[in-house]
Amino acid sequence: MTKIFNSTIRVRYAETDQMGYCYYGNYAQYLEIGRVEALRSIGVRYKDLEEDGVMLPVLELNLKYIYPAKYDDLLTIETQIEPIKGSRIVFNYRIINENNKEIARAQTTLVFVSKETMKPMKAPEKILKAIEA
Amino acid sequence: MTKIFNSTIRVRYAETDQMGYCYYGNYAQYLEIGRVEALRSIGVRYKDLEEDGVMLPVLELNLKYIYPAKYDDLLTIETQIEPIKGSRIVFNYRIINENNKEIARAQTTLVFVSKETMKPMKAPEKILKAIEA
Amino acid sequence: MTKIFNSTIRVRYAETDQMGYCYYGNYAQYLEIGRVEALRSIGVRYKDLEEDGVMLPVLELNLKYIYPAKYDDLLTIETQIEPIKGSRIVFNYRIINENNKEIARAQTTLVFVSKETMKPMKAPEKILKAIEA
Amino acid sequence: MTKIFNSTIRVRYAETDQMGYCYYGNYAQYLEIGRVEALRSIGVRYKDLEEDGVMLPVLELNLKYIYPAKYDDLLTIETQIEPIKGSRIVFNYRIINENNKEIARAQTTLVFVSKETMKPMKAPEKILKAIEA
Repeated sequence: MTKIFNSTIRVRYAETDQMGYCYYGNYAQYLEIGRVEALRSIGVRYKDLEEDGVMLPVLELNLKYIYPAKYDDLLTIETQIEPIKGSRIVFNYRIINENNKEIARAQTTLVFVSKETMKPMKAPEKILKAIEA
Repeated sequence: MTKIFNSTIRVRYAETDQMGYCYYGNYAQYLEIGRVEALRSIGVRYKDLEEDGVMLPVLELNLKYIYPAKYDDLLTIETQIEPIKGSRIVFNYRIINENNKEIARAQTTLVFVSKETMKPMKAPEKILKAIEA
Repeated sequence: MTKIFNSTIRVRYAETDQMGYCYYGNYAQYLEIGRVEALRSIGVRYKDLEEDGVMLPVLELNLKYIYPAKYDDLLTIETQIEPIKGSRIVFNYRIINENNKEIARAQTTLVFVSKETMKPMKAPEKILKAIEA
Repeated sequence: MTKIFNSTIRVRYAETDQMGYCYYGNYAQYLEIGRVEALRSIGVRYKDLEEDGVMLPVLELNLKYIYPAKYDDLLTIETQIEPIKGSRIVFNYRIINENNKEIARAQTTLVFVSKETMKPMKAPEKILKAIEA
């Protein structure tokens, strides 16, 4: 599956630092928005997932910062979901600015965890189907 | 009661903005640290409070920004707790920097809420006693 | 002038706290978005303002929290700009959720500061005109 | 060089999310504190570095989340600086909690950039010497 989902965010003043750039730690929030919106666009609301007793904590974050993002930049987060194996789900991201300049590349690995047992669990059927579709 | 509790925090790079100052929205976190540490120093752990079924959401925040805080500044948050009436608790704060320059003044009003009923409740006895003592 | 400008934001997972609500400190960022977008809609880019040597730090923040905002809520920030007097500009805000429930009311006072002299200055002509229009 | 520098931080309420854990994006701030304090303890103030015209943006961030950090946890950030080659500096981190449980492992790569030319530059002499010593 190489379908790519786009979300946009505008860099907030709060997110700049005194270098005049978007602070490197804020990208994690942008990636979260990327994957939440990617899931939403295939019919899965992360909010419902949690209400159904499934949590999705992050196991691994890898980020390469390529070009600085600045205040008021309108960024596009391109998100791609890898085929799910077992209890893990991997998202790949590219962030680009309005001039189509690449800002960052990233990958996150998350794990489906049952709220009841607090242990890893298989990906819920409805997600597997939504991703395949 | 006019006892004043001091906590210190150092302004993080993440907390600066491109003006070169500590972003105005971050002060709310500093005040939270001020009141949590003030409570801790009279023997009340906010964490225990929540585990005992009591939440303490903020109803009102008033902040005056007097002098900019900068990266790496070591700030002191002076916190003073007003006598509790019913279900509300009011904290007053002054933030000063290492040169004793006043950075900000603030006040927050919080309300004791029962996790069970999700309704305001009287302040727990152990807090009333701790504050009186 | 009682023109009201609307912006929308969606509450990020990062912005929730363990109470399950949007953390009270994050509202300051929402207000910033409200006023930046209000200015943008009358033709003033805050970014240009800074590039022209004008800063606009916050002097005062007053916030009343009325009803909790939750993860994934789509909030509308209603922003209203008061007539400018001298070097200060006052914004009033109401935040409402998708069910038209009032989440918060707020007011911020900001001051025009010259980057060169670091002193308060009169509001730039282009802002005065944009607001009057 | 395998000297390890320790800094401690307490997880703020603002830093939790509705899962009840410290939000994954906040770790980047903790790492920043780790490396700033590591540099401070060998006599290099990051603040002075910037005032001397040297910026140190992050090029790469890799983070493995091993065990959740929770509200009010007192975390130790163990930071180790790799020998500098050219214009890059690599920091390795381990975050552990009060029970000595490993919370996360991370690595960041940063680059020395001249504020004047906005291009990568060799590491300043004073840093090279401080690290060797």
